[in-house]
Amino acid sequence: MKDFDVRIPTRIIFGKGKEREVGRLIKEYGYQKVLLHYGGGSAVRSGLLDQVKLSLEEVGISYVELGGVQANPTLSLVREGIRSCLAEKADLILAVGGGSVIDSAKAIGDGAGDPQADVWDFFLQKASPKAHIPVAVILTLSASGSEMSQSAVLTNEETGLKRGFNSPTHQPLFSICNPELTYSVSRFQTGCGTVDIMMHTLERYFGWTKDSAVTDRLAEGLLRAVIEAGQVADKKPRDYEARATLMWAGSLSHNGLTGIGRDFFMQVHQLEHELSGMYPRIAHGAGLSALFASWARFVCPSWPERFAQYASRVWDAAADPADPMPAALEGIRRTEALFKSLGMPISLKELDVDPERFEEMAIKCTNFGARTLKGIRELKKAEMIQIYEMAYEAGQS
Amino acid sequence: MKDFDVRIPTRIIFGKGKEREVGRLIKEYGYQKVLLHYGGGSAVRSGLLDQVKLSLEEVGISYVELGGVQANPTLSLVREGIRSCLAEKADLILAVGGGSVIDSAKAIGDGAGDPQADVWDFFLQKASPKAHIPVAVILTLSASGSEMSQSAVLTNEETGLKRGFNSPTHQPLFSICNPELTYSVSRFQTGCGTVDIMMHTLERYFGWTKDSAVTDRLAEGLLRAVIEAGQVADKKPRDYEARATLMWAGSLSHNGLTGIGRDFFMQVHQLEHELSGMYPRIAHGAGLSALFASWARFVCPSWPERFAQYASRVWDAAADPADPMPAALEGIRRTEALFKSLGMPISLKELDVDPERFEEMAIKCTNFGARTLKGIRELKKAEMIQIYEMAYEAGQS
Repeated sequence: MKDFDVRIPTRIIFGKGKEREVGRLIKEYGYQKVLLHYGGGSAVRSGLLDQVKLSLEEVGISYVELGGVQANPTLSLVREGIRSCLAEKADLILAVGGGSVIDSAKAIGDGAGDPQADVWDFFLQKASPKAHIPVAVILTLSASGSEMSQSAVLTNEETGLKRGFNSPTHQPLFSICNPELTYSVSRFQTGCGTVDIMMHTLERYFGWTKDSAVTDRLAEGLLRAVIEAGQVADKKPRDYEARATLMWAGSLSHNGLTGIGRDFFMQVHQLEHELSGMYPRIAHGAGLSALFASWARFVCPSWPERFAQYASRVWDAAADPADPMPAALEGIRRTEALFKSLGMPISLKELDVDPERFEEMAIKCTNFGARTLKGIRELKKAEMIQIYEMAYEAGQS
Repeated sequence: MKDFDVRIPTRIIFGKGKEREVGRLIKEYGYQKVLLHYGGGSAVRSGLLDQVKLSLEEVGISYVELGGVQANPTLSLVREGIRSCLAEKADLILAVGGGSVIDSAKAIGDGAGDPQADVWDFFLQKASPKAHIPVAVILTLSASGSEMSQSAVLTNEETGLKRGFNSPTHQPLFSICNPELTYSVSRFQTGCGTVDIMMHTLERYFGWTKDSAVTDRLAEGLLRAVIEAGQVADKKPRDYEARATLMWAGSLSHNGLTGIGRDFFMQVHQLEHELSGMYPRIAHGAGLSALFASWARFVCPSWPERFAQYASRVWDAAADPADPMPAALEGIRRTEALFKSLGMPISLKELDVDPERFEEMAIKCTNFGARTLKGIRELKKAEMIQIYEMAYEAGQS
């Protein structure tokens, strides 16, 4: 087990109807002016946003609104949010939505807390926010885990660069998680969420630290719960227990717990960020689904025992310690079959991506030559292109 | 899944030699005067205490000492600590030790933070602390999980009552966890710790909420890791990975994570508290070990499917959904066999307890008739006596 220094202070308020308590909670914390941040359609149509406003008004909390967050949140809207926060002297940002809205809120919180800096510099790792305005969340999508994590991902539309930035300033103050709010999530978005949650766990699990017994067992258990619940929610979108499992597992998968004591780098996420950075129409979970099995087959020969352990403990596949490769491949195959059964793509061809652009994606992945991606197997530009190409041709047999 | 509202803000600094950073950490947090609280023997003999003092002196943090905490921490020492804290204006209590020292520090923190109240009233649930002095920890024993929990257990020597009190004021600010500090823990104490960690998870697992897929899987995974590591540490006390697994699992087992979304009451702990309250020579883990299997056999017919799930997922026992009882009993038998293999008692007879006193223990368990103990099966005085008697005769075959 690798040394660690961890603190996960986000408060989670979980259960039916809990969103109605948001006004009272904010009042208890002593905040006075809220930037109400959301996407578009569903939170408005479902009446959730009106309910939230009512809850704020009931306790005399004033707010200013900023909607319009899109699937890959953009720098320009973040800049607008920062201006709005500063002009209105908001002291809390309330994100009503999924990962995109929460990530956008986190970036606004950084920028408004440290207005002398340029918020994009934080995402380029050129600077760190000196202060921040805290973020609270009403979650409507189980996927990103952003409601309990220090992560945020932002796209600069001018350069097409999509960058993640982890910071303690991104740890939400509290997140309200009502699984019922995800009943109306489409089959496609539910599948994307299941993949994303699994990948947050798998990318840590397939890091390169050998010994981490507790974390391994927790990760394997979480994966089993998500695999079961993902399949139930796919067929029965209004199953409370399945939706609750996905929601709580989503928070745990990316809050740090499943990576404690492990060295890892999220290679598939990085490969996917460049993909959906270039093709914003591609949903993050769908991109991960299309890349995972090819990435896994590519890196697996560097540590087949690890993949065999995954197959054995998560999929009950028979594993032979003397010859781990068959089990290793079987675990990858079953994961791929699960993703397909959830309506997810398992190749880049399905996503109508131009193979001519794989080199450009790989170059962006390396930060224009500045880095390789560490992992079970280190990836340089050539290996990244190879994985993209494998993923293009995948699932043909 | 039951609704929940959870926040686990304790920072864990985990790894070799981390105790040497304690002075720097306290300085960074801005505290100025420390009550250094510890037990007796090992922390002094090993040189750990000197190292801690040096670390404080190096950064100019002054401290006052209070040692002498015993295995079941006492109210009288807590009162002394409160007086010392107030007289010396300590603003942080640093517990160097295991659960007893940490629990004693938590009680001192409550009493010194709210000096108008009587600290024992908090443990009798007659009052709540209005303020508290925070506790930080250097952990030397993997068992209680107190380093990351809101629990504290205290014994009033005058009345012989041992009472637990959970409070947000008990959440440590930070805990430094170096598995190497547990290399010298005796075989007996290591066994007690393994049992205690398992029981913190099992008591939540055997609560009465039916659906909690994520928590179930996490609990089962944690138990598997602890069972493996407990056996390794029993044979190889200086195995870093095994000690690290026990230490991190110990913190997770009692910080709330393994009970999230579940209703439970820790019946075995309650039965044990009366046992070791009356016989202070009995170590908590040994008492739990002597009671668990009898308790489990007694309540198991009320929900055999749950015990069969435990047997199947944690012990790989074959389970027949149509007839869960054989698997259920097999899981209990294997747990009992594990405890025995670790040198732990599996009956009260081994602990040289007087059966004539079982009724008195049961009466104390009911708070002198004020309550029954909720659970898979509700326990009244008569059932408690029955369990104590079963535990007395256990393991004779």
